[in-house]
Amino acid sequence: MTVVTMKRSASIKDIGAVLRTVESLGFTPHVQHEDGATRIGLIGEGSPDQIRQLLSLPGVAGLEPVATPYKLGSRNFRKAGTEVYVGDIPFGGEEVVVIAGPCAVESREQMMITARAVAGSGGLILRGGAFKPRTSPYSFRGLGREGLEILAETRKETGCPVVTEVLTPADAELVAQYADMLQIGARNMQNYSLLEAVGRIRKPVLLKRGLMATIEEFLLAAEYILAAGNPNIILCERGVRGFEQYTRNALDIAAVPLLKKLSHLPVIVDPSHATGRRDLVIPVALAAVAAGADGLIVEVHHDPDHAMSDGAQSLNLEQFDDMMSRLIPLSKAVDRRIRPTSQQN
Amino acid sequence: MTVVTMKRSASIKDIGAVLRTVESLGFTPHVQHEDGATRIGLIGEGSPDQIRQLLSLPGVAGLEPVATPYKLGSRNFRKAGTEVYVGDIPFGGEEVVVIAGPCAVESREQMMITARAVAGSGGLILRGGAFKPRTSPYSFRGLGREGLEILAETRKETGCPVVTEVLTPADAELVAQYADMLQIGARNMQNYSLLEAVGRIRKPVLLKRGLMATIEEFLLAAEYILAAGNPNIILCERGVRGFEQYTRNALDIAAVPLLKKLSHLPVIVDPSHATGRRDLVIPVALAAVAAGADGLIVEVHHDPDHAMSDGAQSLNLEQFDDMMSRLIPLSKAVDRRIRPTSQQN
Amino acid sequence: MTVVTMKRSASIKDIGAVLRTVESLGFTPHVQHEDGATRIGLIGEGSPDQIRQLLSLPGVAGLEPVATPYKLGSRNFRKAGTEVYVGDIPFGGEEVVVIAGPCAVESREQMMITARAVAGSGGLILRGGAFKPRTSPYSFRGLGREGLEILAETRKETGCPVVTEVLTPADAELVAQYADMLQIGARNMQNYSLLEAVGRIRKPVLLKRGLMATIEEFLLAAEYILAAGNPNIILCERGVRGFEQYTRNALDIAAVPLLKKLSHLPVIVDPSHATGRRDLVIPVALAAVAAGADGLIVEVHHDPDHAMSDGAQSLNLEQFDDMMSRLIPLSKAVDRRIRPTSQQN
Amino acid sequence: MTVVTMKRSASIKDIGAVLRTVESLGFTPHVQHEDGATRIGLIGEGSPDQIRQLLSLPGVAGLEPVATPYKLGSRNFRKAGTEVYVGDIPFGGEEVVVIAGPCAVESREQMMITARAVAGSGGLILRGGAFKPRTSPYSFRGLGREGLEILAETRKETGCPVVTEVLTPADAELVAQYADMLQIGARNMQNYSLLEAVGRIRKPVLLKRGLMATIEEFLLAAEYILAAGNPNIILCERGVRGFEQYTRNALDIAAVPLLKKLSHLPVIVDPSHATGRRDLVIPVALAAVAAGADGLIVEVHHDPDHAMSDGAQSLNLEQFDDMMSRLIPLSKAVDRRIRPTSQQN
Repeated sequence: MTVVTMKRSASIKDIGAVLRTVESLGFTPHVQHEDGATRIGLIGEGSPDQIRQLLSLPGVAGLEPVATPYKLGSRNFRKAGTEVYVGDIPFGGEEVVVIAGPCAVESREQMMITARAVAGSGGLILRGGAFKPRTSPYSFRGLGREGLEILAETRKETGCPVVTEVLTPADAELVAQYADMLQIGARNMQNYSLLEAVGRIRKPVLLKRGLMATIEEFLLAAEYILAAGNPNIILCERGVRGFEQYTRNALDIAAVPLLKKLSHLPVIVDPSHATGRRDLVIPVALAAVAAGADGLIVEVHHDPDHAMSDGAQSLNLEQFDDMMSRLIPLSKAVDRRIRPTSQQN
Repeated sequence: MTVVTMKRSASIKDIGAVLRTVESLGFTPHVQHEDGATRIGLIGEGSPDQIRQLLSLPGVAGLEPVATPYKLGSRNFRKAGTEVYVGDIPFGGEEVVVIAGPCAVESREQMMITARAVAGSGGLILRGGAFKPRTSPYSFRGLGREGLEILAETRKETGCPVVTEVLTPADAELVAQYADMLQIGARNMQNYSLLEAVGRIRKPVLLKRGLMATIEEFLLAAEYILAAGNPNIILCERGVRGFEQYTRNALDIAAVPLLKKLSHLPVIVDPSHATGRRDLVIPVALAAVAAGADGLIVEVHHDPDHAMSDGAQSLNLEQFDDMMSRLIPLSKAVDRRIRPTSQQN
Repeated sequence: MTVVTMKRSASIKDIGAVLRTVESLGFTPHVQHEDGATRIGLIGEGSPDQIRQLLSLPGVAGLEPVATPYKLGSRNFRKAGTEVYVGDIPFGGEEVVVIAGPCAVESREQMMITARAVAGSGGLILRGGAFKPRTSPYSFRGLGREGLEILAETRKETGCPVVTEVLTPADAELVAQYADMLQIGARNMQNYSLLEAVGRIRKPVLLKRGLMATIEEFLLAAEYILAAGNPNIILCERGVRGFEQYTRNALDIAAVPLLKKLSHLPVIVDPSHATGRRDLVIPVALAAVAAGADGLIVEVHHDPDHAMSDGAQSLNLEQFDDMMSRLIPLSKAVDRRIRPTSQQN
Repeated sequence: MTVVTMKRSASIKDIGAVLRTVESLGFTPHVQHEDGATRIGLIGEGSPDQIRQLLSLPGVAGLEPVATPYKLGSRNFRKAGTEVYVGDIPFGGEEVVVIAGPCAVESREQMMITARAVAGSGGLILRGGAFKPRTSPYSFRGLGREGLEILAETRKETGCPVVTEVLTPADAELVAQYADMLQIGARNMQNYSLLEAVGRIRKPVLLKRGLMATIEEFLLAAEYILAAGNPNIILCERGVRGFEQYTRNALDIAAVPLLKKLSHLPVIVDPSHATGRRDLVIPVALAAVAAGADGLIVEVHHDPDHAMSDGAQSLNLEQFDDMMSRLIPLSKAVDRRIRPTSQQN
């Protein structure tokens, strides 16, 4: 990919002329404003030879190549971190944002109890699965549309935005009607038609790293969404498969600073799936924020022993509150902050 | 899952009565004929307590539990190996079946040259990707429908059935119109809506093991297809991700006898993706057959150095012919056989 | 293993009688004092049937089984955390202890420059390899005895204890003459004669987790040292081998709280080997302390670009000072502390 | 490493002059005779600049660099395969050599029963552990010297050479007094002082690949032995650690042809440790030979259910005989052969 960098003095007319030329050369332009100047990424099969003619257009400062395999997601395309808003909540800024809720939406009552407790302890966004990807076809696969409706009600009640998983392109529009952020699960990280479907929708996307994905493959999966036109992506490290049997997965903690360095996208961590064990969630959550994570997504259940899925790795409400209390000083120690709950204001 | 075993003397009427009762109890029956007797697997959320009443129905010999997480695919449900036919070519019998062709369909000419050579050397089925899953959105993604048409022409010309990959549920019907077998690639092994889509179509499915899937997860992916009603599945071991950098993946050779033991489904091996290196394909192919594989799927290109994808792991036509020659005595040494080419007849 | 728990009121004579009986039954007793009471672990091939007779001895409160495969290292044997002293520096207490220095001792001058800077920035213990395990027989393997002498001089000059690696049982005594703590490297985690050699010496041992060791195998390696009579072990998580190529190893951050839960031994982290990249060392070091690590071991070089080994992962002196500054508030946020440097006092 | 290639016409005097010059330049020469000509590998820290002067010596044909990290073990140093003799049994030639016996020497009787059966079925070399590396210090660690004596008696009785493991440099001489081949186990693949100890002894060494070793690390471990002066090395692929739980390890079948390509050393496979399951040993053994292995090492026990270690992966005597019968036609199919037993002659 080549980036056309515009002068700060470039007029809107100049930019428009560049965009038209770029398109006439067979490229799709991706426009980025940063630090008072415009940068235009050229994606597509246009002829590289003809790109140099852009240099003669008014307002063009220069051309920069982006040599990494991922282009629009690269720090070489955008130097500053991107802030992604879910409702009015920004990921990628000073705040450490905590998403919490049960693995699966099980009932209206369950969601309300959990949601109120999560919000009361400082969780800003609710999670809950309506469509559940399950290893076995015979396991509980979620309440589907009814689950989505419960999530919408819960949002109304608590004011918290909701995130939920979408499993297949055919459901993307439906899920987007209810959710504030669409989750792509680890199993679907390389489900390209699904990535393109959420790329076209432009709601924020929570993209989980695949169980076996390299950092480069992860950023290339994000690139599918970016290339389809959706810049609102939050990357989520959730553990990769390893050989250790005492934990469910192996959290790649170094991926947090590495992703922040290679990409401008926000990065959060899922300590629940990473460990699979309730007793390890809090220390791993603290570690994630210390390593520079922009947020966390944590499984919480009001009665984990009777959860329909993932009970072993769900915090109960008290443990979640404990985690939030500990995150406050920890975040401060790394120059970040947890938004105070209304009671604490 | 419980299996209702019928007596050999059971009449069609007896079997019909059992099926009706099973359905009235809330189960979907899956019927298997084996060794002169009928076995009915009960899938669904019916009450286990009521199953015992089936024992009093005429023709019922007994009830057997299947305790493994995979049910319809288990050797405990079906003791004999299943033979899956692609056209008139059986997988899972005495023959070792070789599928071969290029990674991607690139042009009519390329497919014809390769197809004739493959068929001439003893390959029975042609492969070629029309829809290609690519790690980067900017890589060549296949010719799409045009690729399917080229595959259909190639089949007409050579008489060989064709297998090609389907990437998303929306394309399943389209691909099924052209292909004799639908391939589910490694990245999509846990794309459940896709598994269910090919499960409803009932054409043979070539299911590749995910890069990071355990044997149990692999069999549970097959179970999605079986539970959707399609018993024609061929399992394909194609290497899992490891730490070695000299090879692309790590072929799990022990998976071949293990899958044959745990499941009644045919098992084939893809030595091309497993190694990623042309110079290792032949010894690994021989090893696969020695370990008990029912077949192979191998990438072949008439000009690998100019292939649009996977050239490094593609055999050229001469090497493919060499591989086939070596497979003949090897197969015989393990009491299997390679179908002779017409010239050899 | 069975643990004989003594009453708090048990006299020294009572304890002596139990020890004599235990030995007469064919066991080696391992004595632990905790919370005012004595606990005696019975290791050996004595007859389990005869253990019950100990219950009748004066002062014996009861018998407790330790069912984990690791015995003396288990939290079930010792409930409180063990503090291991290196010189007067305690691991496993409130303090977070930082060990730092170059990968290899290269010269007297190099060690002195680095050592003064490390001590000045708050590092408490010096590291430096005199005997280096190298993948290739043709790489620099350390200065050997001369390196040990330089380490001893450096200690004299700075007052900081030193830790260095021992590679083979034959060198254990020699290394112990110079070093305050003996390091067992990852490659030697299952070099059992070496483990037993350092077990007999009783100087503190820094035991690094093997590249491919499970948590259980790691604790069983420690058990070799414990069973040989040396209770002074510090466990070090330093990353395991994974599939990611952007980093050298994969730090198993969850291992920190997990080891602290399963064992009473102190746990530290090596962020240098875990990542292999200087730019990731600081965030990973912060994460380790947030997760509960009792300390860190970090590679520091005054001129990393010219280091004879591991330059790419060594912090320079300024970066080390930056890391120490950041560790102070981070440690405080998790109720730990970094010992102030003399200047800061 | 640079290789000095001598002309075929070079005299012994010419060669002697080159060797003296090489040593005077600070190199250790490693001499190889191949195809009628002499090749001299230069190992050491001599000045590369001075090497060119060798070109002017009589009989010198040229200089060749060996660019791989492993030098003496590389196919670039020696183009033809090396044959390593254990007693009069050659590894690396036309024959497929089977080593078999119990995991551990348990008693004289056990060894004799097993040894006679192994020899009767076509096994050429006996294995049996006298010093056993065990994950736990509390497991059975072998009979030690008594075990060595039993092995020697068994050899006397059956005429079969014996191989047994050496765990620590201090035992290398002792083990070498009894055994015909010294085994370095997977845990010790990077125990460099042990590698150098067996390198100095010059008895054949069976070097097992580490659980987590790359191919390059494996060849560099062999290089330690070669550089110490012992050219008699047999490489053994025995499975690496993976994520699959149904098998003990993951056999890297592609390593067989890869090692044969990169190195001139013989390569054998251990299907017992690779799978950990008796029911998978035979198909994996067949696969290994099909892939080009020069031999196998297989655990066999006359009563596996009562074996003191590794019973689950040991073949019983009948199964071993079955394996040998199947290896005969398989070996023939890949142009190798199994030596007929005396009865079969």
